Amino acid sequence: MTTLSEYLSDNLDAFDTDLFELLRIPSVSTDSRHAADVRRGAEWVAEQFQAMGLANEVIEGDGHPIVYAESPPVEGAPIALVYGHYDVQPPDPLDDWVSPPFEPTVRDGNVFARGATDDKGQMLTHVFSTRAHLATEGKLPLQLKFIIEGEEEVGSSVLQKYLAKEHDRLACDCVVISDCSQFAAGQPAITYGLRGICYCEVRLFGPKQDLHSGVFGGAVSNPATTLAKLLASLVDTEGHVQVPDFYDDVENLTDREREQFQALPFSERRFMDQIGVEGLSGESGYSTLERRWARPAFDVHGLWSGYQGEGQKTVLPATAGAKFSFRLVPNQDPAKVVESLEPFLRDQLPPGIRLELDAAHSAAGFVVPLDSPFMSAAVRAIETGFGRPPVFIREGGSIPIVSQFAEHLGADVLLLGWGRDDDNTHSPNEKFSLADFHRGIKASAALWGELAKIKRGGVE
Amino acid sequence: MTTLSEYLSDNLDAFDTDLFELLRIPSVSTDSRHAADVRRGAEWVAEQFQAMGLANEVIEGDGHPIVYAESPPVEGAPIALVYGHYDVQPPDPLDDWVSPPFEPTVRDGNVFARGATDDKGQMLTHVFSTRAHLATEGKLPLQLKFIIEGEEEVGSSVLQKYLAKEHDRLACDCVVISDCSQFAAGQPAITYGLRGICYCEVRLFGPKQDLHSGVFGGAVSNPATTLAKLLASLVDTEGHVQVPDFYDDVENLTDREREQFQALPFSERRFMDQIGVEGLSGESGYSTLERRWARPAFDVHGLWSGYQGEGQKTVLPATAGAKFSFRLVPNQDPAKVVESLEPFLRDQLPPGIRLELDAAHSAAGFVVPLDSPFMSAAVRAIETGFGRPPVFIREGGSIPIVSQFAEHLGADVLLLGWGRDDDNTHSPNEKFSLADFHRGIKASAALWGELAKIKRGGVE
Repeated sequence: MTTLSEYLSDNLDAFDTDLFELLRIPSVSTDSRHAADVRRGAEWVAEQFQAMGLANEVIEGDGHPIVYAESPPVEGAPIALVYGHYDVQPPDPLDDWVSPPFEPTVRDGNVFARGATDDKGQMLTHVFSTRAHLATEGKLPLQLKFIIEGEEEVGSSVLQKYLAKEHDRLACDCVVISDCSQFAAGQPAITYGLRGICYCEVRLFGPKQDLHSGVFGGAVSNPATTLAKLLASLVDTEGHVQVPDFYDDVENLTDREREQFQALPFSERRFMDQIGVEGLSGESGYSTLERRWARPAFDVHGLWSGYQGEGQKTVLPATAGAKFSFRLVPNQDPAKVVESLEPFLRDQLPPGIRLELDAAHSAAGFVVPLDSPFMSAAVRAIETGFGRPPVFIREGGSIPIVSQFAEHLGADVLLLGWGRDDDNTHSPNEKFSLADFHRGIKASAALWGELAKIKRGGVE
Repeated sequence: MTTLSEYLSDNLDAFDTDLFELLRIPSVSTDSRHAADVRRGAEWVAEQFQAMGLANEVIEGDGHPIVYAESPPVEGAPIALVYGHYDVQPPDPLDDWVSPPFEPTVRDGNVFARGATDDKGQMLTHVFSTRAHLATEGKLPLQLKFIIEGEEEVGSSVLQKYLAKEHDRLACDCVVISDCSQFAAGQPAITYGLRGICYCEVRLFGPKQDLHSGVFGGAVSNPATTLAKLLASLVDTEGHVQVPDFYDDVENLTDREREQFQALPFSERRFMDQIGVEGLSGESGYSTLERRWARPAFDVHGLWSGYQGEGQKTVLPATAGAKFSFRLVPNQDPAKVVESLEPFLRDQLPPGIRLELDAAHSAAGFVVPLDSPFMSAAVRAIETGFGRPPVFIREGGSIPIVSQFAEHLGADVLLLGWGRDDDNTHSPNEKFSLADFHRGIKASAALWGELAKIKRGGVE
């Protein structure tokens, strides 16, 4: 009979082939033209569970569907809930991709495609490790529940409602999520903290149509100029957010955390080379890792107004708009931010400009305790899969649903990142190392065994 | 035999038909995809002169061609140079047009099309008045020279070079230009002053590609945020330009000018309704007309960065850019503005952001003396064409070539606007009143007679 370990070694090509199949589906959740592709993504994931004999369901809501699956309960063993997402970011700007974003292409041991690491590749490690257990042992050593959604990149609204309503069905002892990164190539990590986010879109409306700037300029408020003023007012030159009361609830880093971060092998020079800049910026008194992982930040994501074409057009544009977000740290409340933001912006509007502000999605920041038995199980599983123990890090990005899992399910959340920080998530040429993909499957397969040793109730 | 006056009355339909023919040519000078259309525009204009038997030439340069034509010298009579342009602004945003921009459509006595008033319709009044003189009298009472260019909307670079080189060929006693507006419907005007312009494009470059704002935000300078900061720094909330030394050379309005402007029938309420705003803004201590006509202004014309599509994308964009301009008043030097602007912007750049600044085109502001015999001739011609004398106004827009005519040819420039301030120049649904088109042709035909009475050298 094939052992679990043999099965994992023998099926690497099959795992790759299946991953590529999912990567070919352009499941861009934010773009309504891709709605049918997003659905295809859901169906593909459900078929994986169907093929391995797990009870499964495509859950419909007011948005993209969720795929749910579960294995039978195991007496005395804990329940783990695996969360992942099959939706992806838009591939723009398309011209910067070396190979097409939805034709997975292997170069130098990496598969290049939108969603390779975020999150199709990482999510599938847990699906394939489960397949391996079932194929070799016919059963799992603990009950697994899978909840794989299609709206992670647009705020998880269907899942949030489902979670609030169906927390009994989703009841579990720990949540396992792989949607982040190792600390560095070959240095696996457990991410014990995430930043939150408060994502907004602002639109300004001036004259009823574009005007000749020569004829009208100087007497009519310009929406594009006003937009620049508003955005500039939100942040100082060091990146401190200027929205009133913004820092009131910020949870500061402990000295121990700062020391841990300081001990991590991080080269600013390498970091700058990686992203192609000649200098870094941010809050004084904080290191680059602290700025990225555990301090609030403001970023403009998109700007538009007036004439963007070739040459010159002397127009006073009728409208201007921007997408921007605040990254939040644990204990900051996104709703409070929006509450302060809107009057702060409105108070600055010049005559003749109308403002629309949408708070598009938000998530609170999140930290998990480092000393639970689930965390210890994850450390051992990672040692098995990657050959060395993980370091404990934070991550600057947001997984909007994570804090809600903690809140609704009362379970510890294990953020086990198999990706790398140069995987170009959300950027052109997103990639995932196939070696990491395979190590992730091995670590996940080990994790089911390690978690199964924990008595229900969390005592090892 | 047909008199000039009969010819003008009998040929209105023919004038309209010919105007519509030119309006159908999408001669968008700023868009290289329209280069062939721009050339067709030039050829169409040259054919008009050819058909009426005037010597003509399509002058080639490093850009769009100029059409030149001239009638024979007339002993003892002055020479008038007619300037106009056959190029047009881009029609964007296309969705806002009621009828297609290059299918001239008549509604309520107006022809709607890009270029209807700016400047195809106005320019052709002088071409058709010349046709009328030649058709009825076989000759002109003075020598006319025509210089009709195809780059007015993009800075007139070919013409500027030609003018500097060929000022002998273009020698004249006055320059006649119709590329502006009446003061109000039924109230013709002579525009004795224009604002200058200094048009710039700025592009900012940060990381080598778009980054995930969660992973990098807070530690990496954001080009879009930086762009907002830079643009916001250029102007205060009242519209005062903050570039160092910007106001040093500003020529202030005289008390007499301010009184004249004050006496004009101008309704702020009607102005606001016309453009669809609930309030006006600008420098305190100046009226709306003063702000528009005779005070400097700063406007952003276009903004772009990052993700502009539907939904949310949490990207830290690699680049950001803007088009903007300063409107200048007489005595301000555009070159001095750029000289102060560039270091002012560079000094504000955060680490990791690179700036490119293009000063795309510029023109000095301009005022002409009100007491010349040419001005008096124009007043009488306008009375003939429009049935009432003109008021003297300024105009906030720029005709980049005007100050260069004054400089190179030493001639008075007559800016005789047949358009209206609600003609939507540079905007969707540009239009020209056909009645104004016909009155303009009549005034122009009268102008040739009035100018011919002036002795060469300018003494009436």
